[in-house]
Amino acid sequence: MPKSLSPSLASLNKTLEFEAEFIDGLKDIFEEKIVFNKLLGLKITSLTPHRVTARIDMRHELVGHYSHNRIHGGAISAGLDAVGGLAVMAAIGARHLDELPAQRLQRFAKLGTIDLRVDYLRPGIDDYFELCAEVMRLGSRVASTRMEFLGADGKLLSTGAAAYIVS
Amino acid sequence: MPKSLSPSLASLNKTLEFEAEFIDGLKDIFEEKIVFNKLLGLKITSLTPHRVTARIDMRHELVGHYSHNRIHGGAISAGLDAVGGLAVMAAIGARHLDELPAQRLQRFAKLGTIDLRVDYLRPGIDDYFELCAEVMRLGSRVASTRMEFLGADGKLLSTGAAAYIVS
Amino acid sequence: MPKSLSPSLASLNKTLEFEAEFIDGLKDIFEEKIVFNKLLGLKITSLTPHRVTARIDMRHELVGHYSHNRIHGGAISAGLDAVGGLAVMAAIGARHLDELPAQRLQRFAKLGTIDLRVDYLRPGIDDYFELCAEVMRLGSRVASTRMEFLGADGKLLSTGAAAYIVS
Amino acid sequence: MPKSLSPSLASLNKTLEFEAEFIDGLKDIFEEKIVFNKLLGLKITSLTPHRVTARIDMRHELVGHYSHNRIHGGAISAGLDAVGGLAVMAAIGARHLDELPAQRLQRFAKLGTIDLRVDYLRPGIDDYFELCAEVMRLGSRVASTRMEFLGADGKLLSTGAAAYIVS
Repeated sequence: MPKSLSPSLASLNKTLEFEAEFIDGLKDIFEEKIVFNKLLGLKITSLTPHRVTARIDMRHELVGHYSHNRIHGGAISAGLDAVGGLAVMAAIGARHLDELPAQRLQRFAKLGTIDLRVDYLRPGIDDYFELCAEVMRLGSRVASTRMEFLGADGKLLSTGAAAYIVS
Repeated sequence: MPKSLSPSLASLNKTLEFEAEFIDGLKDIFEEKIVFNKLLGLKITSLTPHRVTARIDMRHELVGHYSHNRIHGGAISAGLDAVGGLAVMAAIGARHLDELPAQRLQRFAKLGTIDLRVDYLRPGIDDYFELCAEVMRLGSRVASTRMEFLGADGKLLSTGAAAYIVS
Repeated sequence: MPKSLSPSLASLNKTLEFEAEFIDGLKDIFEEKIVFNKLLGLKITSLTPHRVTARIDMRHELVGHYSHNRIHGGAISAGLDAVGGLAVMAAIGARHLDELPAQRLQRFAKLGTIDLRVDYLRPGIDDYFELCAEVMRLGSRVASTRMEFLGADGKLLSTGAAAYIVS
Repeated sequence: MPKSLSPSLASLNKTLEFEAEFIDGLKDIFEEKIVFNKLLGLKITSLTPHRVTARIDMRHELVGHYSHNRIHGGAISAGLDAVGGLAVMAAIGARHLDELPAQRLQRFAKLGTIDLRVDYLRPGIDDYFELCAEVMRLGSRVASTRMEFLGADGKLLSTGAAAYIVS
């Protein structure tokens, strides 16, 4: 549906790429310093100013439904919240390209989730999962995102929406 | 606000208690078999037909904000989803008291979250947290719950609402 | 459930009442100037710094389900969004008692809904409905509310939660 | 983002069209019998088995913000709930093509919204608005949808997500 967003996304895509220092810094914060993300096994797989993707490998600790080896809905909601925040951080990073990477990274510390909604569409049973998030609007105080949780075959398993406070 | 619910809750409270076998069975499923709940450190602290409470002890693995030792919003959403489902399971258990505890417990396997909303009100910084959930309506196919995530001092940190499919 | 909120609410209740000028001004904005509220037939029934109630009389124009004379879910969501915003406005009014009523009322113009969730629990079939809203947290930039939509007999028909930008 | 959905959508698109009798029947229910939709001025503009669009012309009665001639958030949430339900009805219609149009239309009466989320991204100020809805999943008991509320120029103003009970 977000056909209406495509033009601006496409144009951004061509004109902006993050420095390795910024990307490495974000990865360090996201995958290591936010310890719970590490517990989830969340790994960033791509990072652009308007869209980010990440991956979770299935493992026994994430099981939510004992008889089906299904991933816990809470691992899904936690992952979607995390990638939504990451997408906002990327968008903020793109807005403040005049700042040094280290300065931009400090903005991550001020990000907070206001609220989150997750729709569970299909059981999450797979070897690994892909998560992606897109910023629908980045305001000066509030950012809104949409997220998706996909199976290894690209099947849509859950969707999410969240609002974040930025400052 | 849920003043309107009080009369029925109060009356239920006085007339119904679960057997130890049912409670032990629910605890085993919730705290052990749902492995991700174990990773979160979720422990049931009370269980009645209409309201359940649980607890999460803070530990390093749950950190979401590296500089404040704050619990990850995803641990909150995961915990609230879990206790909402537990409350529905308790309500279902109360509806099927004619069945043996083991039969009632099998109904847990059929429970699924349709969707979840979490509102993050205040930073989750504390030694432990209390989670509680209440069933707002138990239909034949869908159940709706409200949940709360509280600090050790009883301060309200997050609220949630969820819908579950029951069958 | 919001037991944890009671102490502060109770203490506020005893110490603070709005001036007639402020209440009349809010009523004029809410019931007249916000024209869609008038279309819904929304009327404020009580207004305190932390909790507001309103009422909608059922009429043919609000029908959502043609064979049951049921109120449209959209009338419910619209009403809950409106009373949530009103509760935030009341809370803001209480925070800025040092300002003149007219000044405080101007703050209403800056209020905006960030997002809204409504859970439809039971069919809305009745002669009139009561709506109530409570502010869960009023921050400097974001306020969070919980709302309820009740039948004439006080039965809980729908619940809501919303976030508002305040400034 | 819903790239993952495209293949199935495209294939459905080519193989299925509704009969005029079914479309006219849905329009009559949606635009006339659901009286509140008429109050909103909701008109169906396209109807396929997986995606529907509708339109609301701005008028004074829909004003939510008195100084900006902005449409009320409640008119947005009401419209999004309505088109989400319409999309589910279209999807149900496509699933039961073996039934007569009149039989399929009776299924509309059994549809109910479980819950709704709306994210307000940008102020709704325009001469008319387009609403669109897509079914993310149609199960035997629950359907999930995503919705968008666009300005006359195609700018995304609000997004929504909802769950419906179908039977």
